Amino acid sequence: MELLILGGSIVTMGPMGVIRDGAVVVEGGRIVDVGKAGELVGRYPRYERLDARNCVVIPGLVNAHQHIAMGLLRGYADDYPLKVWLEEWIWPLESKLTGRDIYVGALLTALESLMGGVTTINTMYHYADDWNEARALADAGLRGVVGHVCFAWRRDEDLSAIQSLAQRWHGGAGGRIRVSVDPHAPYTVDPEYMKELRAVADELNERYEGEAPITLHIHLAETADEAKRVEEAFGVRLEGGVVEYLDGLGVLGSDVVAAHCVHLTEGDIKALASRGVKVVHNPVSNLKLASGISPVPKLLEAGVTVALGTDGPCSNNSADMFETMKVAALLHKGVSGDPTVLSASRALRMATIDGARALLWDDAIGSIEVGKRADIVILSFRKPHLTPLYHEESHLVYAAKPSDVETVIVDGEIVMENREVKTVNVEEVMEMARKAKEDILSRLERERN
Amino acid sequence: MELLILGGSIVTMGPMGVIRDGAVVVEGGRIVDVGKAGELVGRYPRYERLDARNCVVIPGLVNAHQHIAMGLLRGYADDYPLKVWLEEWIWPLESKLTGRDIYVGALLTALESLMGGVTTINTMYHYADDWNEARALADAGLRGVVGHVCFAWRRDEDLSAIQSLAQRWHGGAGGRIRVSVDPHAPYTVDPEYMKELRAVADELNERYEGEAPITLHIHLAETADEAKRVEEAFGVRLEGGVVEYLDGLGVLGSDVVAAHCVHLTEGDIKALASRGVKVVHNPVSNLKLASGISPVPKLLEAGVTVALGTDGPCSNNSADMFETMKVAALLHKGVSGDPTVLSASRALRMATIDGARALLWDDAIGSIEVGKRADIVILSFRKPHLTPLYHEESHLVYAAKPSDVETVIVDGEIVMENREVKTVNVEEVMEMARKAKEDILSRLERERN
Repeated sequence: MELLILGGSIVTMGPMGVIRDGAVVVEGGRIVDVGKAGELVGRYPRYERLDARNCVVIPGLVNAHQHIAMGLLRGYADDYPLKVWLEEWIWPLESKLTGRDIYVGALLTALESLMGGVTTINTMYHYADDWNEARALADAGLRGVVGHVCFAWRRDEDLSAIQSLAQRWHGGAGGRIRVSVDPHAPYTVDPEYMKELRAVADELNERYEGEAPITLHIHLAETADEAKRVEEAFGVRLEGGVVEYLDGLGVLGSDVVAAHCVHLTEGDIKALASRGVKVVHNPVSNLKLASGISPVPKLLEAGVTVALGTDGPCSNNSADMFETMKVAALLHKGVSGDPTVLSASRALRMATIDGARALLWDDAIGSIEVGKRADIVILSFRKPHLTPLYHEESHLVYAAKPSDVETVIVDGEIVMENREVKTVNVEEVMEMARKAKEDILSRLERERN
Repeated sequence: MELLILGGSIVTMGPMGVIRDGAVVVEGGRIVDVGKAGELVGRYPRYERLDARNCVVIPGLVNAHQHIAMGLLRGYADDYPLKVWLEEWIWPLESKLTGRDIYVGALLTALESLMGGVTTINTMYHYADDWNEARALADAGLRGVVGHVCFAWRRDEDLSAIQSLAQRWHGGAGGRIRVSVDPHAPYTVDPEYMKELRAVADELNERYEGEAPITLHIHLAETADEAKRVEEAFGVRLEGGVVEYLDGLGVLGSDVVAAHCVHLTEGDIKALASRGVKVVHNPVSNLKLASGISPVPKLLEAGVTVALGTDGPCSNNSADMFETMKVAALLHKGVSGDPTVLSASRALRMATIDGARALLWDDAIGSIEVGKRADIVILSFRKPHLTPLYHEESHLVYAAKPSDVETVIVDGEIVMENREVKTVNVEEVMEMARKAKEDILSRLERERN
């Protein structure tokens, strides 16, 4: 498809900054030109035009930590203590999910995400061979990294799932899908298995050398008691924090994507920085589950790449990356007492180019630059809540909503145009989700009787 | 207008709780019947029907602290230290606002608010005789309490503005508009003037006895240095907190609406509770301006009525009460470490019936009950991000967005239907706002040259 996106402000998130009355040219899935509308309009006369006047054009948002399959469980249980929430509500319901439910939940969240300007999702869930998160992302027309979550208690099953996932999906959907190796967390994966998963990731990276990299996606330092839980679970003694512990196991590296990083020692922060670990900040989830507040300004100061994630639909309960940018930008101001901390511009960077960096995908996505894949989002600013306009980045972070997203392009293909989704039937997906929910509740009911 | 809202879940926020497959009957601006759709449909055969299947019907949201006139300044300056922000950015621009700009900014924010399900706004700004916030609320078809903000340095002007505002607008727009007496804050209004404003409020309440009450709206305990600023400004010595100081002046009462209440002593909390002062929590603004985090759970525990507000468009930068409900519900979980704190149900109450209580208007609004004025909001839940549905209140607080609001009724009149605004022309208001912004910037530019 040859496309000329014309007019409006192009917020490139690259060296060209913000281009007012700009234009972007897309060809063969790639961005081939970026500049002023007046200059480009004559150069590409036969290209299909997308009118972006009164619009703001941004790189597709990167949601760097998700569990998209949990879409069916959103709002099932909230405001409970963590233990009760997991043991009495979430786990019993999750145990009733079929592969097909995983697919439907994932498709639902993928749909919500794309309608809100998210083009890339890093997601972790139980992998099922036929119906899974990768297939949902592929069907929705999105880009993503998909991992199978690994636990100490199911090592053999996990190792087989990782291989199956990699074979079937790494580089899948025309390169839009990549896979990762996902130890659940330090307290649920024993030290030996953790090292083994590190080795599996290394082996896969050797196998796919020259192709897309494989990341290692893990929950890390989410709750205050994590170090204690590691000690109790595996009879080890931690000298420092949980990050230092993982470093001691040789697990850390620049391919590690660590979600949360809320409770960190000074040594932990040093280890994250020196190993080039990428941190994913999930402020909404961390608040909702009362996990605490990640020391993001300190991480940034230490030079750590920090991306943003919503976390799963049960602990947020939204896939809204605009909300996540705003909450991130606000929370650290409020907590530090310094209103200059984490500016709108920084929050936008975390949700775009730094998200791409976290997934080792910044060579191809995360900014609007010539040569990159065309993952582009067009927002209408012709709305009372975005009028008048002084600074695009301020409105994007502090005032814009998912519903302001008009058109979404992934890998050069239009997946939503003027809010009409092109890849899946929205009504059908919702009906599938309603039916799946009723079936899950029936199965749960039958078991309880 | 005779209306039968039929189908969907009615979240009454009153003794009837949530009614699934419910119906609400509106006649002469009032709610005259509420119940099951199956029972009411036959009883009102000739009433105009509003189809609310797959929808959730709630009382109109109450935004209990705003400065709606500042709509034109949204996004003009962000992420600066408070002093720089006010002195170098906001105040110079505000000094260039005409009465007409105040009206246009207020109309813009009123429009954004109604499109997001807000039907009542408590707003404070400089009152101008011809073009003002009251007129904007009236024109938009909204309900509201409007106050003229008072400062020590312009006592005579203020007292005259209060009288003018009360005469022209108290009970205006068919009772939709009420007025308040608004000392700006303890550090900008000297003790004598503060007592005088208390007396003015009392006099007005006597004058309008039997009619609508007049509230006293004030910023209180917003920043950590407020007590010190009071001492420095007026040469007084505070024994306790700023609330205790106001109590000592005899200012507090159940008609006082105190915005912020972030930095409170134990004595302050006791004074708020014992005097029946209503607190308005503005979590988004407090974070953005790095003011701190109000001890809301403690206030609730002490029996204080706590409402929610967005604060003005410059310190938020949104009039989105769904966002404010979510941030309120999340923030206090994250800060306390207790995920059961401030449930979805409580947040919704703060934004509806407790907002009405704060404005002494709960006899007529804040819940869907027979006899109350018909301020009703219908949200479509036929959206991927609201599917499937387990609990209405959870989705309303944790997942719903302003754009999910389909239809809004104020005082029995439909002001928006299927997202089409009936009271003002949306395109015209935006064009007025764009032009007003350009004019203000030109005036500022001319002054600087």
